[in-house]
Amino acid sequence: MSHTKLFIPGPVEVSPKTTQALTRPMMGHRSKDFQALYGRIMPMLQQVFSTSQPVFLSTSSAWGVMEGSIRNLVTQKVLNCCCGAFSDKWYDVSLACGKQAEALKVEWGQPITAEMVDERLAAGGFDAVTLVHNETSTGVLNPLKEIAAVVKKHPGVSLIVDTVSSFSAVPTPFDELGVDVMLLGTQKALALPPGMALFAISDAALAKAATVKDRGYYFDFVEFRKNADNLMTPSTPVIPLIYALESKLEDILAEGLEPRYARHAALNDLVHGWVRRQGFEFLAPEGYRSKSLTCVKNNLGIDTAKLVSIMKKDHAMAIDGGYGKIKGTTFRLSNMGDETAETIGELIAALDDSIRKL
Amino acid sequence: MSHTKLFIPGPVEVSPKTTQALTRPMMGHRSKDFQALYGRIMPMLQQVFSTSQPVFLSTSSAWGVMEGSIRNLVTQKVLNCCCGAFSDKWYDVSLACGKQAEALKVEWGQPITAEMVDERLAAGGFDAVTLVHNETSTGVLNPLKEIAAVVKKHPGVSLIVDTVSSFSAVPTPFDELGVDVMLLGTQKALALPPGMALFAISDAALAKAATVKDRGYYFDFVEFRKNADNLMTPSTPVIPLIYALESKLEDILAEGLEPRYARHAALNDLVHGWVRRQGFEFLAPEGYRSKSLTCVKNNLGIDTAKLVSIMKKDHAMAIDGGYGKIKGTTFRLSNMGDETAETIGELIAALDDSIRKL
Repeated sequence: MSHTKLFIPGPVEVSPKTTQALTRPMMGHRSKDFQALYGRIMPMLQQVFSTSQPVFLSTSSAWGVMEGSIRNLVTQKVLNCCCGAFSDKWYDVSLACGKQAEALKVEWGQPITAEMVDERLAAGGFDAVTLVHNETSTGVLNPLKEIAAVVKKHPGVSLIVDTVSSFSAVPTPFDELGVDVMLLGTQKALALPPGMALFAISDAALAKAATVKDRGYYFDFVEFRKNADNLMTPSTPVIPLIYALESKLEDILAEGLEPRYARHAALNDLVHGWVRRQGFEFLAPEGYRSKSLTCVKNNLGIDTAKLVSIMKKDHAMAIDGGYGKIKGTTFRLSNMGDETAETIGELIAALDDSIRKL
Repeated sequence: MSHTKLFIPGPVEVSPKTTQALTRPMMGHRSKDFQALYGRIMPMLQQVFSTSQPVFLSTSSAWGVMEGSIRNLVTQKVLNCCCGAFSDKWYDVSLACGKQAEALKVEWGQPITAEMVDERLAAGGFDAVTLVHNETSTGVLNPLKEIAAVVKKHPGVSLIVDTVSSFSAVPTPFDELGVDVMLLGTQKALALPPGMALFAISDAALAKAATVKDRGYYFDFVEFRKNADNLMTPSTPVIPLIYALESKLEDILAEGLEPRYARHAALNDLVHGWVRRQGFEFLAPEGYRSKSLTCVKNNLGIDTAKLVSIMKKDHAMAIDGGYGKIKGTTFRLSNMGDETAETIGELIAALDDSIRKL
C-alpha cells in the first residue's frame, strides 16, 4: 500500500511499465528521432481508432481539442447534446468561443437519443453537433452509431465526438462511424497519465476548417494535419507522454482490441453484480450504461463521503463520491485501463468491507 | 553514451532526479492531494517569478498561453515585436485569432529597442504588445526592463512577455518589471520535459480579460485565476510534469537564484570564449546576447549539418544547425538548465574535435 490506487473515473491507475516509459531521455521534437517515434505510433493509433486518417497528438487535456473543434468547425450554430457535467460544459465553452449554440438538454443520467438529435437538426441552421459518447459524470453511454447515422442525413453538419472515457474500452471505429472529429484524453481508458489529447478528423472537417476564420493556431486542424504529414506536431509535444503512449499501444495491440473490449465488459459486469447485490441502483437506464465506469445511484442513502474516506484510509483505494450536482446522490467506480478480474475483485471486497463499516 | 545529450536550445537535458519525479503515482486532480501539491509549488514559483501573484500551470506548450494572451487581452490592436522565428510567428498567431495586429520588424539577429516600441505605441490605437524576451532562434536578449518602462507610459496597453528561454537563467522579476503576462514553457531553462507552460498575469490583465468576449475556455485567464485561488487548474493538469516541477523548484531554490543567474552567465562566457577562439562571430550584437544559448554566426562557412552530425555520431551530443531561414548560416549551443563548467567543458572539447574532423 505505497499509494492510493485509483478507481476514480480518471486519472486511473498507471502501470509500472507505462510509468517507466516516461523516463526515456528527451529528444528534439524537430528531429528524425521524433519523426521515427511518431512514425511507430501512428499506425498503432490508426488501428485503435480504426481509421486511415492520421491521428493527431495535442499537448493539452481533452478540453483543448473540445474547444478547438468548436473554433475549427462552427460557422453557423452548434447543437450541444447535454446530458451531464462534461457535455453541459461544452455548451458553455461554445458560447465562450463566441459561437451560436443551442443546448439539447436531458436530465442527468438519461441518454441522448438519435431521434432527439434528428428533431433538432431538422429545424435547420446548424453546422455542427457535439456529443460526449460516454458521459463520465453520469455513467451514460450514448448511442453513438445511431446518432452518427442521423447526423449524416443532414448534409454540412459536422459531428464532434468526445470518446474520453470510452475509447479502447468499447469499439469506436472512426471511419465506419463516419464522424468528423473523435477526441480523447490520455488519462481515462488508455491508463496513461493526463496531459495529452488524441484526435482524428474527417476529410470534410479538414476542408471546412480551412475555410473558417479566427480558428487560431494552437488547436488549428490545418496545422495539425500539415505537421502530421511530416510526422511532427504544430507545437512542442509532451514527449514523456508520447513515450508512454507508444508503450501502451504495444500493450493494447498485444492484448487485441476485441479481447480488450470483452475484458472491459466483463469487469463492468462484475461491478454491476456488486451494485445489485448491495441493493443499489444505476443512474443510467438499462441499455445506456457505460462499460468503463459505473455511476451508482445512492438509493440506499449511504454516507458516500464516508465511504470514499474509508476506502482511502483502510484500503488505499480512491473511488469517487459523485460529480457536481449529483455528488452524494451518486458515487462512481471505474473499471478502465489495466484492471483485471483479480483487481476488480479486490475493489469489490474493499467496498463490501467499507460498506459494513459505515 | 546511452543517449544523445541535448545541447540544443530546448528541450534540454533532463536530470535523473527530475526524471525520477515523473514516476510518482497519479492522483485525482480534484483531490486534496493535488491541492497540497500545488500548494507546495505555488510559493516556490512565486519566488522564482518574484511575484505575489498566483502562478498558473497550463497543460500546453508555451504557444498555448501565447495564443491565449492574445485572446484574453487584445480588443483593439496588438503590436507584435518581431525579431526572429518565434516572435515573428506571434504576429501570424494574432492574425489567426482574428485580431488587429501590427508587426514591429527588425532583421533577425537584431534586438527590439525601447525607442522602437515607444515610437509605434505613440501612434495610438494599440492595447497590447508582445515581446519575446530571449529570442531562441537568434540568441538575442531584448532589453525587457527598458521596454517595460516604455510600455507603462502608454496607459491601457498590456505587455505580454515570453520568457521561454530566459526564465531562471537571467532575472525576470515579474512585479518589479510591471509586465502584464509573463509565460514560459518547461523544457528550456527549467530543464523539465516539454508539455507544460507557466504564467503569471497582473491584476490589470485579469480585470481586462474579464471584459473581453470570445476568449474561450481552455486559456481563459479568469478561469485560471478562479481555479488557482482554490489550488486547482481549469482542466486536467499534466501531473507527471507537476511532480517534476516540484522537484526542480527545490533544486533551483537550493542553488539560489543569484548563484543560478551567475552560473548561467559564467557558462555562457565559456561558450563565447570558444566562439571567439575558433574565429566565429555572434549573430546578436554585443550587449544583446542571450545568457542561456549562443547563436553562432557561421562567418567561417563551415558545413554546419556535418558539424551537427559528427557531434551526434562521435560525441553523442545534440547541437542545433540553425533555425528556419538562418539554418546553415548560424548554429546554436545551449547552456540552459543543469549544465556546469565541467559539462560545458565537455561540449567545447567535443566541438573542437568535431571542427577538426570537418
